[in-house]
Amino acid sequence: VALDLKPMLKPRSVAIIGASRDPDKVGHVILQNYINAGYSGKLYIVNKNADEIMGMKSYKSIGDIKDSIDLAVIAIPAPFVPQALEECGKAKVKTTVVVSGGFAEIGNVELQDQLTLIAKKYNMPTLGPNCLGVMDPRSRIDTLFLPTYKLSRPSIGGVSFVSQSGAVGSTILDLIAGEGFGLSKFISYGNAAHVDEVDIFNYLMEDEETKVMILYIEGVKRGKEFFEVAKKISKIKPVIVLKGGKTSVGMAAAHSHTAALAGDAAAYEAAFKQAGFIIAEDISELLYYAKVLASEQRPKGNRIAIVTNGGGTGVLTTDTISLTQDLRLADFSEKTKTTLRKAMPILVNIRNPLDLAGDADEQRYGEALSLLAVDPNVDIILVIALFQTPGADSKLAVRLVNYKEKIDKPMIVISIGAEYTKMHRIIMESAGLPVYDSPAAAVKSLLALYKYYKFRDTHKN
Amino acid sequence: VALDLKPMLKPRSVAIIGASRDPDKVGHVILQNYINAGYSGKLYIVNKNADEIMGMKSYKSIGDIKDSIDLAVIAIPAPFVPQALEECGKAKVKTTVVVSGGFAEIGNVELQDQLTLIAKKYNMPTLGPNCLGVMDPRSRIDTLFLPTYKLSRPSIGGVSFVSQSGAVGSTILDLIAGEGFGLSKFISYGNAAHVDEVDIFNYLMEDEETKVMILYIEGVKRGKEFFEVAKKISKIKPVIVLKGGKTSVGMAAAHSHTAALAGDAAAYEAAFKQAGFIIAEDISELLYYAKVLASEQRPKGNRIAIVTNGGGTGVLTTDTISLTQDLRLADFSEKTKTTLRKAMPILVNIRNPLDLAGDADEQRYGEALSLLAVDPNVDIILVIALFQTPGADSKLAVRLVNYKEKIDKPMIVISIGAEYTKMHRIIMESAGLPVYDSPAAAVKSLLALYKYYKFRDTHKN
Repeated sequence: VALDLKPMLKPRSVAIIGASRDPDKVGHVILQNYINAGYSGKLYIVNKNADEIMGMKSYKSIGDIKDSIDLAVIAIPAPFVPQALEECGKAKVKTTVVVSGGFAEIGNVELQDQLTLIAKKYNMPTLGPNCLGVMDPRSRIDTLFLPTYKLSRPSIGGVSFVSQSGAVGSTILDLIAGEGFGLSKFISYGNAAHVDEVDIFNYLMEDEETKVMILYIEGVKRGKEFFEVAKKISKIKPVIVLKGGKTSVGMAAAHSHTAALAGDAAAYEAAFKQAGFIIAEDISELLYYAKVLASEQRPKGNRIAIVTNGGGTGVLTTDTISLTQDLRLADFSEKTKTTLRKAMPILVNIRNPLDLAGDADEQRYGEALSLLAVDPNVDIILVIALFQTPGADSKLAVRLVNYKEKIDKPMIVISIGAEYTKMHRIIMESAGLPVYDSPAAAVKSLLALYKYYKFRDTHKN
Repeated sequence: VALDLKPMLKPRSVAIIGASRDPDKVGHVILQNYINAGYSGKLYIVNKNADEIMGMKSYKSIGDIKDSIDLAVIAIPAPFVPQALEECGKAKVKTTVVVSGGFAEIGNVELQDQLTLIAKKYNMPTLGPNCLGVMDPRSRIDTLFLPTYKLSRPSIGGVSFVSQSGAVGSTILDLIAGEGFGLSKFISYGNAAHVDEVDIFNYLMEDEETKVMILYIEGVKRGKEFFEVAKKISKIKPVIVLKGGKTSVGMAAAHSHTAALAGDAAAYEAAFKQAGFIIAEDISELLYYAKVLASEQRPKGNRIAIVTNGGGTGVLTTDTISLTQDLRLADFSEKTKTTLRKAMPILVNIRNPLDLAGDADEQRYGEALSLLAVDPNVDIILVIALFQTPGADSKLAVRLVNYKEKIDKPMIVISIGAEYTKMHRIIMESAGLPVYDSPAAAVKSLLALYKYYKFRDTHKN
């Protein structure tokens, strides 16, 4: 039976077991984050040693709360967790998140097995232990015990991120917050005593808010079931995966880290490929791919038009595209070439890459983009906009955003530079136009985009 | 005869020919940038249509200035450049930079040939035309016509950057400004009518302020001479090269861009390798490699110790190291292991990667680093410091900087995240400790470092 994770991610009522007034305690940070996040459901506090915490009534036990509880967050020392979980079950709590550590990851397998048994007995979806828990910017649920000043929280978006590792999870979440694309769900599931990858995938497959999934994984427990759901999910939405423990040395490190067997790397890679997953080789690639796939632009083919205001950057991007086996530069149609020749200054060489010259402004970009938008030989538009040049400013950034909304072809941007460039990058990314800071990052991402939709075309249900 | 570029980069007196009061003119931006940069030598203005510009006396001709001129910056329309250059020669100007475009790059080969003849006649090193010119933060020379609000200027440092392309040049310069390592010289040489790669390399080889060279190049004119100086220079200081036009399609784009023949890509690559150049495949790699080489840390071997406060990030970094052929994880000495076991909390598994756990603070890092610093089995220390975790704050950043200064082994840091992380990254980088934002970037950079010094060891003079 599939576990229902909805009450965990969209809870109407939350109880924090182990909420604390001591700022150094995890239970305090979690409570504080709830208040900061603006969670608008009912919030209850359980701490048997307090009557009141931060102005809120504290209950001695979860059973004392008369209300129905959708989610109990458990942040108390490991030895006390089984009893608290049992009380949650008796009180008909719908789901729980156990953030506490001190279970299988340090050899306390039996203690963890108790959690599994209790969760199963009450059929109460239980996440963790030893995890960061969940975050959903729409429901404003946030069980992370890391303060917001250290770990920025992403805005609302379509990317769901599932992480076995808390550290990788928190850094990537922080990076997502720094990028323009937002988050649908973050699920850090730690030791997976009850809820595991299969349950999470089943839930996110059906979740309409989730457009793209990214996954950091060291190993899966239910291999067969996992790859069954994986194959189904890839036909509906893209999954980008980063696997820890790809080498024997890395595998040994992973084993010491999560006590999970990282498994045969080649077997995983083959299975991921068969499932249609997009494989990232590094944290940075995970972010690059998520960005372009979150923009929900579907290419009809692999022919790329490059429009640039920097000749050298156009050359480098051309090289990078040519070095892939799957992408290629478009041959502009005769109509495009003739019309461009009339519209462009004489210095502009009418070819692909189209170098608009260093003085190109939003007007010149606009003329080129209008033509490429309707050129049947062009599938994807790659714009290089270098904001160091005299003609490029916020008017250009806004114009590119407008074209992205108007054009029925995938469009991405390369903008490279420091502060002034970053300012313009934010304008574009917050409007859903993916921006990359190097030719390699941009071209890799287009390759992932192209390959994913090619997989979809050849694996229709 | 080697051309002397010193008066161009360390001028005691500068004349700007074509300085303008019109803010839209290149000659205005250049003048404004000189004033902003705080150039302290003598500054003269030449504009035959003005008596005074921005409060400064304007000369009708360079010949009217009684002073000896080290550098004349020429920013007037192309047809008038030969006459201005001739006047510079007659006035015994030592060097010139022609920023004006409109020469060979648009087919005006004859006009450009005139510049070459005049420069040779007066043996007057002339940079350009069609270039951004030079920048040296020590002498505060800055001929770039791009305003500082668009293109940040780097601080003083050891990296010299030579670029054939203005666009690639300006974006990389902007990125260098955004990074912690500073600039020695920036030389954008454009069409190379007179001063070319060989002259620049000869000058920078002897320049003690230049510790590392980075190069963007699409093709060289004097191949034989270039590779002769290249071989010599690599034995003295590292050269990182990014080549535009590596593929036939990219080559065609490069030809249209700089009118230079990009040449046979395989031949270039072989020659670069033979010369001991470090080959970057992308703009991002150019920056990564420059950063670690600018820190002037020489490894004794290839055995890396990883110290981390995030298990998963340690696993990913281990994988990345194992996938290289040349780097490997160190086996800690027995003494290190025994002492670590006593010093570390019981939860810390004593192995490489050394996972100090999520609550590690500067104290725990310090204990580990003191031991690895003296472990004869460790050549390089790779620190992963994730600032999202409870124990990591500015005290950790400062501690790492202190250790970098104390330890006689290369040390680099991986810190991944948004604002809070970036703040700490600046603390570390401005103190000369290289920080990377992904395992792939860090490991690639260590590989470049290791390979370069291995080349030096096997190619002693």
